[in-house]
Amino acid sequence: MSGAGPEIERLMALLSKLPGLGPRSARRAALALLKRRDQLLIPLTHAMQDAADKIESCRICGRLSTQNPCTTCVDPMRDETMICVVEEDSALWAMERVGAFTGKYHVLGGLLSALDGIRPEDLRLDSLISRVRSGRVREIIMALPATVEGQTTAHYIADRLKGFDNQVDITFLARGVPVGGDLDWLDDNTIAHAFKSRR
Amino acid sequence: MSGAGPEIERLMALLSKLPGLGPRSARRAALALLKRRDQLLIPLTHAMQDAADKIESCRICGRLSTQNPCTTCVDPMRDETMICVVEEDSALWAMERVGAFTGKYHVLGGLLSALDGIRPEDLRLDSLISRVRSGRVREIIMALPATVEGQTTAHYIADRLKGFDNQVDITFLARGVPVGGDLDWLDDNTIAHAFKSRR
Ligand SMILES: [Zn+2]
Ligand SMILES: [Zn+2]
Repeated sequence: MSGAGPEIERLMALLSKLPGLGPRSARRAALALLKRRDQLLIPLTHAMQDAADKIESCRICGRLSTQNPCTTCVDPMRDETMICVVEEDSALWAMERVGAFTGKYHVLGGLLSALDGIRPEDLRLDSLISRVRSGRVREIIMALPATVEGQTTAHYIADRLKGFDNQVDITFLARGVPVGGDLDWLDDNTIAHAFKSRR
Repeated sequence: MSGAGPEIERLMALLSKLPGLGPRSARRAALALLKRRDQLLIPLTHAMQDAADKIESCRICGRLSTQNPCTTCVDPMRDETMICVVEEDSALWAMERVGAFTGKYHVLGGLLSALDGIRPEDLRLDSLISRVRSGRVREIIMALPATVEGQTTAHYIADRLKGFDNQVDITFLARGVPVGGDLDWLDDNTIAHAFKSRR
């Protein structure tokens, strides 16, 4: 109960579910939206409605996009022999900001985790294996966090790809990614460097 | 440029205008919305559309409400001899959470500030004076921040009310409100105490 009336309280309750917003910052956000109706509330509502209507996960790589397959998947200028595997779109966005990678992507949608009960079938792992098996992929770059879950997931993928006829190199982002670090929180130079010195 | 495509970037740009969200947290918020389409994106979009359609400022007190005049203004159980003057709705919400005040409110919509160029005509000051002049108001409680702007605004109101026929007491929240403190950030006990010991 915030004393603001049911409609505003519902708005606050939903805003507080956004990462980084607690009850107090959700109240401030709700007030900012209501005070700036034409400059913020209505444009943001439209942008969200637009996103809900148009954005879906690419059926090839899993990327969030208004096109399906996404622009990266259909872009003939991008090297289809390389796939960069990321946990979430945020890591892909970070890569694209840097602009150091010109291959294709695969968004897993999470990481394997015994603790959280996330199994292979909960992630886009079968579709990754299919892409590698059917395509001209020569290198898979594991741009996954340097956490237990990130390493477990990378090893699971490597295991699944053993014994294929086509030779696929599996590389990892090297220097610069701190242990437990989320790609989205790194500066662009660090990402570019880690890319160049992948092993 | 975040590498996410124009629709998602527009969403991020608007989210980053919310108080407390910078570019990085706006990216995380956008990803959370897009990943939780049915549980978060669509319900929040509807709540915001609902707010944009229904919520306006009460023509008497300025409070954000789906009713006009708002429920507080028309509630016969609330003491119309007392008006609690607040800067923004967030302070009113804090008061209502505490439940210590049973009078009416007046939301100024800001504070006088020479620095920010906020003049009396930019705030709901004339309507406050009219309410006091025409009504049965006996006490105005200044629930304003203990800042230069808060004090300037309180003194301006006191000056405007001098020389009226009806005697109106002007009181201030007393102990517990820290200098520069925003009411919304105080614990409820502090607010209740400050109310009781208003001077
Ligand atoms: Zn794609
Ligand atoms: Zn009202």
